Amino acid sequence: MILEKIKEANDVKQLSLLECEQLAQEIRDFLIRSLSETGGHLASNLGVVELTIALHRFLHFPEDKLVWDVGHQAYTHKILTGRKEQFATLRKTGGLSGFPKRKESDCDAFDTGHSSTSISAGLGLVQARDLKGENYQVVSVIGDGALTGGMAYEALNNAAELKKNFIIILNDNEMSITRNVGGMSSYLDHIRMAAPYTELKMGVTNALKKIPKVGDGMVDALHKTKSSIKQLVIPGMLFENMGLTYLGPVDGHDMRQLGKVLQEAKRKQGPVLIHVLTEKGRGYEPAMRHPARFHGAAPYEIETGLPKSNGNPSYTDIFSTVMRKFGDREPDVVAVSAAMVPGTGLKRFGNMFPERLFDVGIAEEHAVTFAAGLALGGLRPVVAIYSSFLQRAVDQILHDVCMQNLPVVFAVDRAGLVGSDGETHHGCFDLSYLSMMPNMTVMAPKNKWELSDMLKFAIRQKSPVAIRYPRGEAYTGLEDYRAPIEMGKAEILEKGKEIAILAVGNMVRTAVQVTENLRNCGYEPTLVNMRFVKPLDMDLLEILREDHSLIVTMEENVKSGGFGEQVMTYYGSRLHSPAVRIVAIEDKFVPHGSVEDLMHQQQMDSASVTERILRWKEEQQKSTEQLPE
Amino acid sequence: MILEKIKEANDVKQLSLLECEQLAQEIRDFLIRSLSETGGHLASNLGVVELTIALHRFLHFPEDKLVWDVGHQAYTHKILTGRKEQFATLRKTGGLSGFPKRKESDCDAFDTGHSSTSISAGLGLVQARDLKGENYQVVSVIGDGALTGGMAYEALNNAAELKKNFIIILNDNEMSITRNVGGMSSYLDHIRMAAPYTELKMGVTNALKKIPKVGDGMVDALHKTKSSIKQLVIPGMLFENMGLTYLGPVDGHDMRQLGKVLQEAKRKQGPVLIHVLTEKGRGYEPAMRHPARFHGAAPYEIETGLPKSNGNPSYTDIFSTVMRKFGDREPDVVAVSAAMVPGTGLKRFGNMFPERLFDVGIAEEHAVTFAAGLALGGLRPVVAIYSSFLQRAVDQILHDVCMQNLPVVFAVDRAGLVGSDGETHHGCFDLSYLSMMPNMTVMAPKNKWELSDMLKFAIRQKSPVAIRYPRGEAYTGLEDYRAPIEMGKAEILEKGKEIAILAVGNMVRTAVQVTENLRNCGYEPTLVNMRFVKPLDMDLLEILREDHSLIVTMEENVKSGGFGEQVMTYYGSRLHSPAVRIVAIEDKFVPHGSVEDLMHQQQMDSASVTERILRWKEEQQKSTEQLPE
Repeated sequence: MILEKIKEANDVKQLSLLECEQLAQEIRDFLIRSLSETGGHLASNLGVVELTIALHRFLHFPEDKLVWDVGHQAYTHKILTGRKEQFATLRKTGGLSGFPKRKESDCDAFDTGHSSTSISAGLGLVQARDLKGENYQVVSVIGDGALTGGMAYEALNNAAELKKNFIIILNDNEMSITRNVGGMSSYLDHIRMAAPYTELKMGVTNALKKIPKVGDGMVDALHKTKSSIKQLVIPGMLFENMGLTYLGPVDGHDMRQLGKVLQEAKRKQGPVLIHVLTEKGRGYEPAMRHPARFHGAAPYEIETGLPKSNGNPSYTDIFSTVMRKFGDREPDVVAVSAAMVPGTGLKRFGNMFPERLFDVGIAEEHAVTFAAGLALGGLRPVVAIYSSFLQRAVDQILHDVCMQNLPVVFAVDRAGLVGSDGETHHGCFDLSYLSMMPNMTVMAPKNKWELSDMLKFAIRQKSPVAIRYPRGEAYTGLEDYRAPIEMGKAEILEKGKEIAILAVGNMVRTAVQVTENLRNCGYEPTLVNMRFVKPLDMDLLEILREDHSLIVTMEENVKSGGFGEQVMTYYGSRLHSPAVRIVAIEDKFVPHGSVEDLMHQQQMDSASVTERILRWKEEQQKSTEQLPE
Repeated sequence: MILEKIKEANDVKQLSLLECEQLAQEIRDFLIRSLSETGGHLASNLGVVELTIALHRFLHFPEDKLVWDVGHQAYTHKILTGRKEQFATLRKTGGLSGFPKRKESDCDAFDTGHSSTSISAGLGLVQARDLKGENYQVVSVIGDGALTGGMAYEALNNAAELKKNFIIILNDNEMSITRNVGGMSSYLDHIRMAAPYTELKMGVTNALKKIPKVGDGMVDALHKTKSSIKQLVIPGMLFENMGLTYLGPVDGHDMRQLGKVLQEAKRKQGPVLIHVLTEKGRGYEPAMRHPARFHGAAPYEIETGLPKSNGNPSYTDIFSTVMRKFGDREPDVVAVSAAMVPGTGLKRFGNMFPERLFDVGIAEEHAVTFAAGLALGGLRPVVAIYSSFLQRAVDQILHDVCMQNLPVVFAVDRAGLVGSDGETHHGCFDLSYLSMMPNMTVMAPKNKWELSDMLKFAIRQKSPVAIRYPRGEAYTGLEDYRAPIEMGKAEILEKGKEIAILAVGNMVRTAVQVTENLRNCGYEPTLVNMRFVKPLDMDLLEILREDHSLIVTMEENVKSGGFGEQVMTYYGSRLHSPAVRIVAIEDKFVPHGSVEDLMHQQQMDSASVTERILRWKEEQQKSTEQLPE
C-alpha cells in the first residue's frame, strides 16, 4: 500500500509517477469505503484525485497556498496532509470537517463552503504576497459550476486587471450539484467538443504557432491589429479576451499532462487559467451514474450505491409535492432554483412543467431579481434556495423584491442547524436578515401539514413571503392542529397560565416535549406555535400578559435580530409586562456535528430548555419575594 | 421649442429625425439648467439623451418595458413621459425621484438604484411575457460599469441559456462613477480600438460576410467546425461565445444608427446585446472634463461648473485624511474600493500609494472576499463601501471574513439616511446585518475626531471591525470629549439621573439637543455616546439601572435587529430593569428628501424626540401611580 507511506504533507513528492497512479487508485478505494460508512461528498472528490496529487507534486505545503472553491472536494488534499486516520470521524461531532479548515491544518489556506469565493480569496493572497515581497505559489481550484456565480466573474475581471502571477484551475466536470446551465456552460461544452485536448493542450500561444499561414492571412483581413491574431484560436478565447492566459483543456486524470501544464503555467507571467477536464464520481460506477445523489451522500452500500437507510419524508419532500400540485392548479406559478433543483425538491415540478422551472445556476443574486421580474410580469414565482446560500441575495431581496413589494415566495430550505455540513451551511441568520426588511412576511411551519398550508397561503399573498423550514425529516406530530393560516396570527396549541412558550417552526416539536416536562413539574404552560415571525401576532402577545409572568421564545436562529428580540421589544416597550427569556443560537459560529449534539451544545434540546425554564422561574420567584412591598 | 410639444409618452414618435436632433439639444440645455438649481446625476444623463430618444421612437409606452440599470440616467426618459414640469422638485422632499419609480409613472418598468440588476429584471419580464403569451418588447440598458457587477454576468449567462427575444443595451462610456477597471473593461477598450463602428456596426454575422475568403481558409485550419468561424470576428466575440447575438459598436449619439441597430435587433431571434458608445457629460464642457464630480452633483454655476457652495468637511474627508496618514505610518494598510474611490475619499491614498489601493469595480462581493485574502496574506485591508451597497456582500462578510475572524476593517460610509438619493440608497440596515454576525465589532463615531480615533483603534484589532458614519458634514461639536477608545466601552457625556439617552453615531448630535431640551423641562438626563453597537457595553447598562427609570436608545437604523433591540434584550433578560424606549427608523422604506425633513417624518429630530421622551415619562408616571400597592 502506497497510501500508508503518505504520513504528512509533501510525502507524495517522493513517489514516482507510476506510484502516484497507484496512489490515486488506493485513495479512490479508501474514499469509497470510508464514505460508505460516514457519508460525504463522494462524487466530487472522486473526480479530483489525480488533480490533487498533481497539485501536491507541484506545490510545497504549507508555504504554497491552495484554495479550494466550495471546499467539499478537498478530501484527497486532507488525506495527503496527514488527516487520513480521522476519516472515520468525517462530518461527525468533534470530527474532521467536510470542508477546508485552517484550524485543522496549516495546509488549508482559506476556509470555504459557499461557492465561487476561491478566485477572490486567492487573488487577495497573491496581492499580499507581492506587496510583502514574499515568494510562494497561489492556486485556486474552481469548478465550472462555481464559475456561474457572479463573484467568480468579478474576481476573474480583477485578476486580469492586476496581472499578478496566479494559477486558477477550472475543474470542468460539466456539473455543479447537477448538470450545469447557462451561456458559460455552453461555451465550455463548445471548447470540449471543438478542441481535442491532445492537440491543443499547450494553450493559446503554442497552438497559434501551429497555424502560421492562416494567421498571417487573417492579420491583413482584420485591420492588421496584433490582437486580432488571438481571435483565431478556439479554446479559451473568452478568458483570453478578459485578459487571462488560457491553458488547456487537459485531461484531469492524466497526471503527466497535469504536471506539464502546471509547469507551463508557472513559467507564464500574470494570471493563468488552466482548463482541466474531470469526471465526477470517476472510478465508482454508482457515483458516475448518479452524481447528484452522490453529491452529499448519506452512508451507502458499496455494492449497489444505494443509501443504507431511507429516511422518512422531509420538509423538502412536502414542498416538492405542493409545488407539483401548484403546477396543475395554478398556471401562473413558476419555480426558480439556483443549481439546487433536486436538493430543494423541484425536480418533479420541473419534470412535469419544464418551461416553468428556471434553474439559473449557482447565481442566487440573479435568481432573486429575475424572480422580481417574473412577478412584475404577472407570474407567481417561488424561489427555493437554502437559508445559508440565500445570504448571497440579501440585497436583491431587500432592494428588488421588498422595496417594490412584489409577490415573490421564498422557500427557504435548510433553515436552522443542518448538521454535518457545519458552520458554512447552518441556516441560522435568515430570521434576522429577513425580518429587518420592510414589506416581508416571515413564516415557519410546525409540521409537514403546516408547510403545505403555508405554501398555499403564501402563493395567494400580494407581497413577499418567506417560509423557512429545516433540513431532514418533517415533523408528523400535532396532526390534528390545523387551524387555517391567517396573516400574522399564531396558533395556540395549549392554553395554560404562568409560563407561555412561543415556538417558531421546528422548535414547536421541542416545545411540545418541554411543555410535557413542565407539566410533570406541576406547571400548566401555554404553548404557542407562532407561525409568523413577521408580522408578530401582537394581539396574542397582549392577551398572554394577563395570565403569564414568564414568556419563553424558542427559535433556531441567532438571537440578534431574531424572533425573541422582537417579542422582547414588544413587551419591553409596554409597561407592566411579563418577563421574557430567549432560547436561540448564541453569538458564535456553530461547528459541524449531529443536529442532536449541536442542539444540546446550544442548550436548545428539550431537556436543557426545561431546565433553563425551571431556573428562570425560580429566579423570578426569589426576586419577587425580595421585592420591597 | 420642440421640447414643449412633448407632453406625454410616445409624443416623440411624431417628430422627424431632424426634429429629434433638435430635441436632444433642447433636453441637454434643459438638464444643464435645471440641475444647476437642484443638483442631480448630470453627466450620465447627458450621455444618454440620443439613446433615450431613439428608444422612445422604437418602443411604445407603457406596453413595452424599458429597464434602466442603476436608474440615475433616466432623466430624459422622465422628460419624455410627461414629467418635465416636475424637474424643479427633483430629489427634493415629496418631489420627483432621481431614479425610476413605478409609482411615479407606468412607463417606469422596474425600480432601480443599485447596480447590475437590469438584465435579471428584464429577463424575468421576458420570461413572464412569453409564458403568458403576451407580446411586448423588453429592453434593459446597462452601463459598462454596471457590467463589472457579478449579477449582470449571472444574468447574461442565464439569458443566453433561455434564448428568448430580449434586447440588452450596453451603454459603454468607459466609466462607472469613475473610470472603469478590470478585464471586461480592457476587452471593451479593445473593441473600441480595433473596430471602427462605421465598418462593423451591423454585428458579427454581417461582418463575417465581408471576409469570406479568409473565413474559408480558416475553417480548414480549425478542424472544420462550423462554430470556429465565429472566432474570426473581433468585436463582441466574448458575448457571442456566451451565446448572445452581439451588434455594434454603434455611435450612441447618432440617432439614425441607433434606430437602425434597434430594428436589426428586433429581427433577431434570442437575446441581443447592442454595444452603444456614449460620452458621459456630452454637451457640457465641465461635465465632460470632470465626469466623477458631475456623477451626483450638487447645484452648480452653469458658467464654470463649480458647486454653488462648498460644504464643511465631511466624514468622508476625515476618513480620507486618516487613510493618508495610515499610508505613511502603517505599511501593511491597504484599501479596497468597489468603484467608489472618490466617493469614499480614497483618492488621496491612491495617489500616494497607488499599489496599495485596489479598486475592483462595481463588485462588492469580490471586494470583501478579496480583502479576506489580503488579510490572510498579512496585510491590513480597509474596505470602504457605502452602507446600502455593502448589503450586496452580507454573505461574504459573514462567511469569508467573520467566520475566519479575519482583521478586515469596513469603513461604512453613507450610513443612515442619505437624503436626495432616497430609498434605494439609505443606509439604514447595516447595524442589523452587521450585528447578527459573530466576531464582528460595530462602531459609530459621534464627531469628526472620533471617526479618526476609531479608525486608528480598528486597524489595531485582530478581528473584523465595521465603522459606520453618515453622508455629509461631520459633526464638530463635543470637541473636548475624546476619551481613548476601548473595546466595547461607551462614553458618558453627561451623568444625570432618571432618564438616560444612549445614542449611536450621528444621533449623538441630536441627543445633545434633546438633553438640553429636557434640562429646560426640569430633568437631568444622562447622555451616553455608545461608540460600540457590538459588543454592547453591558457594564454601563448595569450601572445605569441604579439611577434611571427610563432608557432611551437613538440610532439611524431600522428597529429590527438594531441597537435598541439589543439594549431592550439586555434589560428585558434581567429582573427589575428600567423601561426602554427605542428611537429608530420605522419598518417602512424611507423616500427621498432632505435629511432634515426625513428625520422629522421619522420623529427622530430633536424636537420630536424630546416630545416623545416627555410623553413616555408621563405615561410612566401615570402608570406607577396606578400600580396596585
